[in-house]
Amino acid sequence: MDFRSDNTRGAATEILAALSTANEGPRTPYGEDAQTQRVEAKLKEIFETDLAAFLVATGTAANSLGLAVLTPPWGVIYCHEGAHIAVDECGAPEFYSGGAKLVTLAGADGRISASKLERLLPAGQGFVHRAQPAAVSLTQATEAGTCYRPAQIGAIAEVTRRYGLHLHMDGARFANALVFLGASPAEVTWRVGVEVLTFGVSKNGALAAEVVILFDRRLASEFAFRRKRAGHLISKGRVLSAQVEAYLRDDLWLKLARHANAMAQQLSAGLAALPGARLVHPTEGNEVFVQLGEPAIQALTAAGFQFYRWPEDHSTTLRLVTSFETTPKEVAALIAIVRQHTHDIDTRAGAAS
Amino acid sequence: MDFRSDNTRGAATEILAALSTANEGPRTPYGEDAQTQRVEAKLKEIFETDLAAFLVATGTAANSLGLAVLTPPWGVIYCHEGAHIAVDECGAPEFYSGGAKLVTLAGADGRISASKLERLLPAGQGFVHRAQPAAVSLTQATEAGTCYRPAQIGAIAEVTRRYGLHLHMDGARFANALVFLGASPAEVTWRVGVEVLTFGVSKNGALAAEVVILFDRRLASEFAFRRKRAGHLISKGRVLSAQVEAYLRDDLWLKLARHANAMAQQLSAGLAALPGARLVHPTEGNEVFVQLGEPAIQALTAAGFQFYRWPEDHSTTLRLVTSFETTPKEVAALIAIVRQHTHDIDTRAGAAS
Amino acid sequence: MDFRSDNTRGAATEILAALSTANEGPRTPYGEDAQTQRVEAKLKEIFETDLAAFLVATGTAANSLGLAVLTPPWGVIYCHEGAHIAVDECGAPEFYSGGAKLVTLAGADGRISASKLERLLPAGQGFVHRAQPAAVSLTQATEAGTCYRPAQIGAIAEVTRRYGLHLHMDGARFANALVFLGASPAEVTWRVGVEVLTFGVSKNGALAAEVVILFDRRLASEFAFRRKRAGHLISKGRVLSAQVEAYLRDDLWLKLARHANAMAQQLSAGLAALPGARLVHPTEGNEVFVQLGEPAIQALTAAGFQFYRWPEDHSTTLRLVTSFETTPKEVAALIAIVRQHTHDIDTRAGAAS
Amino acid sequence: MDFRSDNTRGAATEILAALSTANEGPRTPYGEDAQTQRVEAKLKEIFETDLAAFLVATGTAANSLGLAVLTPPWGVIYCHEGAHIAVDECGAPEFYSGGAKLVTLAGADGRISASKLERLLPAGQGFVHRAQPAAVSLTQATEAGTCYRPAQIGAIAEVTRRYGLHLHMDGARFANALVFLGASPAEVTWRVGVEVLTFGVSKNGALAAEVVILFDRRLASEFAFRRKRAGHLISKGRVLSAQVEAYLRDDLWLKLARHANAMAQQLSAGLAALPGARLVHPTEGNEVFVQLGEPAIQALTAAGFQFYRWPEDHSTTLRLVTSFETTPKEVAALIAIVRQHTHDIDTRAGAAS
Repeated sequence: MDFRSDNTRGAATEILAALSTANEGPRTPYGEDAQTQRVEAKLKEIFETDLAAFLVATGTAANSLGLAVLTPPWGVIYCHEGAHIAVDECGAPEFYSGGAKLVTLAGADGRISASKLERLLPAGQGFVHRAQPAAVSLTQATEAGTCYRPAQIGAIAEVTRRYGLHLHMDGARFANALVFLGASPAEVTWRVGVEVLTFGVSKNGALAAEVVILFDRRLASEFAFRRKRAGHLISKGRVLSAQVEAYLRDDLWLKLARHANAMAQQLSAGLAALPGARLVHPTEGNEVFVQLGEPAIQALTAAGFQFYRWPEDHSTTLRLVTSFETTPKEVAALIAIVRQHTHDIDTRAGAAS
Repeated sequence: MDFRSDNTRGAATEILAALSTANEGPRTPYGEDAQTQRVEAKLKEIFETDLAAFLVATGTAANSLGLAVLTPPWGVIYCHEGAHIAVDECGAPEFYSGGAKLVTLAGADGRISASKLERLLPAGQGFVHRAQPAAVSLTQATEAGTCYRPAQIGAIAEVTRRYGLHLHMDGARFANALVFLGASPAEVTWRVGVEVLTFGVSKNGALAAEVVILFDRRLASEFAFRRKRAGHLISKGRVLSAQVEAYLRDDLWLKLARHANAMAQQLSAGLAALPGARLVHPTEGNEVFVQLGEPAIQALTAAGFQFYRWPEDHSTTLRLVTSFETTPKEVAALIAIVRQHTHDIDTRAGAAS
Repeated sequence: MDFRSDNTRGAATEILAALSTANEGPRTPYGEDAQTQRVEAKLKEIFETDLAAFLVATGTAANSLGLAVLTPPWGVIYCHEGAHIAVDECGAPEFYSGGAKLVTLAGADGRISASKLERLLPAGQGFVHRAQPAAVSLTQATEAGTCYRPAQIGAIAEVTRRYGLHLHMDGARFANALVFLGASPAEVTWRVGVEVLTFGVSKNGALAAEVVILFDRRLASEFAFRRKRAGHLISKGRVLSAQVEAYLRDDLWLKLARHANAMAQQLSAGLAALPGARLVHPTEGNEVFVQLGEPAIQALTAAGFQFYRWPEDHSTTLRLVTSFETTPKEVAALIAIVRQHTHDIDTRAGAAS
Repeated sequence: MDFRSDNTRGAATEILAALSTANEGPRTPYGEDAQTQRVEAKLKEIFETDLAAFLVATGTAANSLGLAVLTPPWGVIYCHEGAHIAVDECGAPEFYSGGAKLVTLAGADGRISASKLERLLPAGQGFVHRAQPAAVSLTQATEAGTCYRPAQIGAIAEVTRRYGLHLHMDGARFANALVFLGASPAEVTWRVGVEVLTFGVSKNGALAAEVVILFDRRLASEFAFRRKRAGHLISKGRVLSAQVEAYLRDDLWLKLARHANAMAQQLSAGLAALPGARLVHPTEGNEVFVQLGEPAIQALTAAGFQFYRWPEDHSTTLRLVTSFETTPKEVAALIAIVRQHTHDIDTRAGAAS
């Protein structure tokens, strides 16, 4: 009963099967095969626009390479203070960009706002002593399990356009966001100003695959050299293209995300109904952030549940992540344990007041 | 009938099956799982020494990360002029090391010699105007399909030790070399002075996996940060550990290499016996370099064979690479075609003389 | 009447004369001359310890090179949010370190505190997903014109030692701080834990010279290569050594700083006595930060005074910097203008209330 | 009697005097002063074209920054195997470019040829596995003391244009070349295809100053950020602008170079007339490369002459560099010593035959 992350899971059946199917026979290596081309064509259809698609094995590579084509070494990348690129990638964006600066913004529920961003931008543009505003990176769904609405993205894009910045989206949980928003892929990306998207695949049912989508194909040549130079062009390209093709076929990606989100909603609703549990953020994707009493947390651990305290080890807020494999039974079991131990909390809380 | 490269093939059956087996259930991500630990333990056994093993998905990443822990940004890395790191990785070692310099040496049959190396080293050591000799990288088997004998490696290591350099081995085709040499893994690596090894897996039957082996565990901490920062720490680590565990189980890796080498030997012997074919290098691994007449080359193409002219598109030398999947029938068919068309060549050659 | 910065001035007479004296005859280039050696010897005497001294032409180079030998590319450098390295050097520390991360701390009067620093450090040490705490950089005197007391530095050093970080000091205005503190150079540097010091020269009477002082000579070799590789090893080394030798001779450096500080004190005291002026930070070096009414600011400009509004162009706080050339007359003139226009302010303020 | 290098000398009288003159009064720092603007205007006049001029203190910085705006991190820079950028700058171009690759070409008398260059270029253009041809760097005068004729530069530029490369010129001894060629600055630079020029100042009579000239002003913005970020924007900009303005005033730069060249011609002619001396390269600038017998070399040392054996310490070829300060007397004295000891050589040579 693992609620630690969606990356503790293996692959969805369809995706694993696709690896076997793709294993037959020789193929032109380094992504020059027909399957890789089919994946790009399919993404053009899904996103309803021309684009360039590059497959890589990890989200860190996808984000860092995507940002590297949007910012010079003396650029500034703005993002939320909890963003994966700022907190969890050991300085990968700095490495890939040749030393760009990440400036983080606070913001409720994992989102940055257009107005807060705009207050940071004017100072120092063109002034040689300052690192230069270059890009904004949004996470969709956010690290708080929430989603940017198209209008929110558009408002931020309006600011980036006005100040000559580029707009990047880390879509490690893009499918989960899309399902929640009920929007089309185009509506939350290029139509509202996103130029480069990390289209997440791994967390939502693949083994190891992400797609960097460049809505401006002129960036493709530079990207191709950067990817190769970083060792992220896999020789037996089928290992990536097979996963992604299966992921996109018959809307599997949306189906998987829909399940994970549904599990998160059940979990969230179940917990919210308990007196001793407090939701920290609205549940909009496949992550539930809930504050519990220490006894309930300990009981969950004792019962074999796995999860992370968030954002730090001594916190009493838990991050509970559902996945394409999470079952209603697991969710119900978790809620039941918490229910059992919230009585204690209330009592204790009452005693303390 | 594909003789282009060993990376045009899929995975060996055992390795593909291992991916399915490993797919079950949740696991701790980012290489913190038991299977990854078992792989390291197994490698210690195989190499008969303590070591640190890091899994990555590509050879370019493996080589560049391995070299980056051996050289400062102002270091010089010496290698053969045909080395993959110098020719085929788009400057990846420069990127990863922060701008180190690759100095290439000519050398017969893809090998550099200890004496030639030594002549380059003394000048400029400690002299602040010069990039500083830092490491030597050997390719095993070489890009010419030959193998360094343990004594040759030892002689080079003697030089690197004397001048304070480190010794790296690009073992993209390490198994093929080992099988040819009839040596133990230890005998061609740490016992003769190799400090960091790219232990190739992909080309010899996996989908996408390489292991960087650090014989000096003190390099491990730095390596771990470099790998993560480069986006080469895969979240669902099982995708790598499953492949490598299967690769090492019951000597599968040696079995696969033995087959590929045997096919190369058949091919090489068959071609060498023909009057119009000339072997360019001795065949010691799974690569055959053969000069043919243009009619023979065209006939091969017409018959559906795939291969690269080497080192350039207009050359009449072919590089023919065999793999774990190459069949005796394919080899025989290739030889037959060439035999059929060497008559023409001889005639033409005779006419020309 | 220029109060913009101490770098709007030329060189002190003695330093300019030294350039002429040093011009005679041939010399070994690239800092291998006797004068450069004498400078290092003199600094050992002044700092009462062994050290390695490297001359460069700019403070940005001095800071960035000094930090680069203290942090790996995946390191974090902590500094005050107003620090020159974070705000005014266009990402130079990131460039020189290969992409380290600067994390800034708020703190009253330009100083960071040991306790605030300590709260940031524990999380993520050794955790491969996080950039790793590597160094702390203090500015002495600070960008707010204040000075760290030896005990404050010692307290920070106590934290850096405990967490395995290094301690760097940007001493662009080191002489001004020393004069204010009445301390010896040793007392505010290596004795309280500073490992690398940018010993500022340019701002305090030279044309273009800074010294990077490494209190741990083992860093010297790496530093030498980094300096050369960055183009900061000047061929005609005398241009630097002559300036620094003159700067250190007969305590010229302290004499120049004493004068600049005295002018700042006069200015500060004079302004503080006026009803419409408010000192924003205590005046401890050669910088006065004062909030004035807009009419007084405009009157100063009209009278030909030059200065910066701080920290931004629309602020009504001025940064007034005195130098070795500032005269009591200039100071008095400035105060007189403000006095003349503070009446208006009071009246206006009164009217507004 | 120092013939080691032109950088063992101090500054010409006029340049030193200019530093004193420029010392008076406050000035806007960071190159935003009128004198820096006058320098740029004067260079436009001298080069008869629009351009952007950036002052820095060292040749290594000038070359590396100039190359960094012409090549991406995955670019290849082609240059002569003896080029300063390849041999003497500790990897500075690699550092500044983010890891570009220097590929060196052999070539008689320090020059590369258009035809040899062209043979290297076609392979791998646009092929993602190869570092990409990006720029060619010529040294004028070359490291062999020779000069590229305008037609030779033009022929190389014709190749670079055809393959989409940029053309850089390291003009550390640009004035010496110009004087020899009797050409105008325009005729050997932008008119024949040079896009970025390091206009050398230090070696020819300044203390520490070089100008990077960008004939394409669109590169200026990027250059400005790169310079600042590297710590090569000097705060008291007058230290550079004063030197360069004096250098350009009344053709001082050409006068100084004319003298140095004349001394080299005297030296070269005098030595060439001796039976035991052999000129290794034609003398076209201010460097004489001469092979002597060991006794003559030892006698020169004994007589107090200083010089470098070239290219290595055990060579019997000397590099003798003249400067604006070299006197006819010094030249005559050197020739006299050699003449005195060439008898021995001849005798010995005769005895040996």
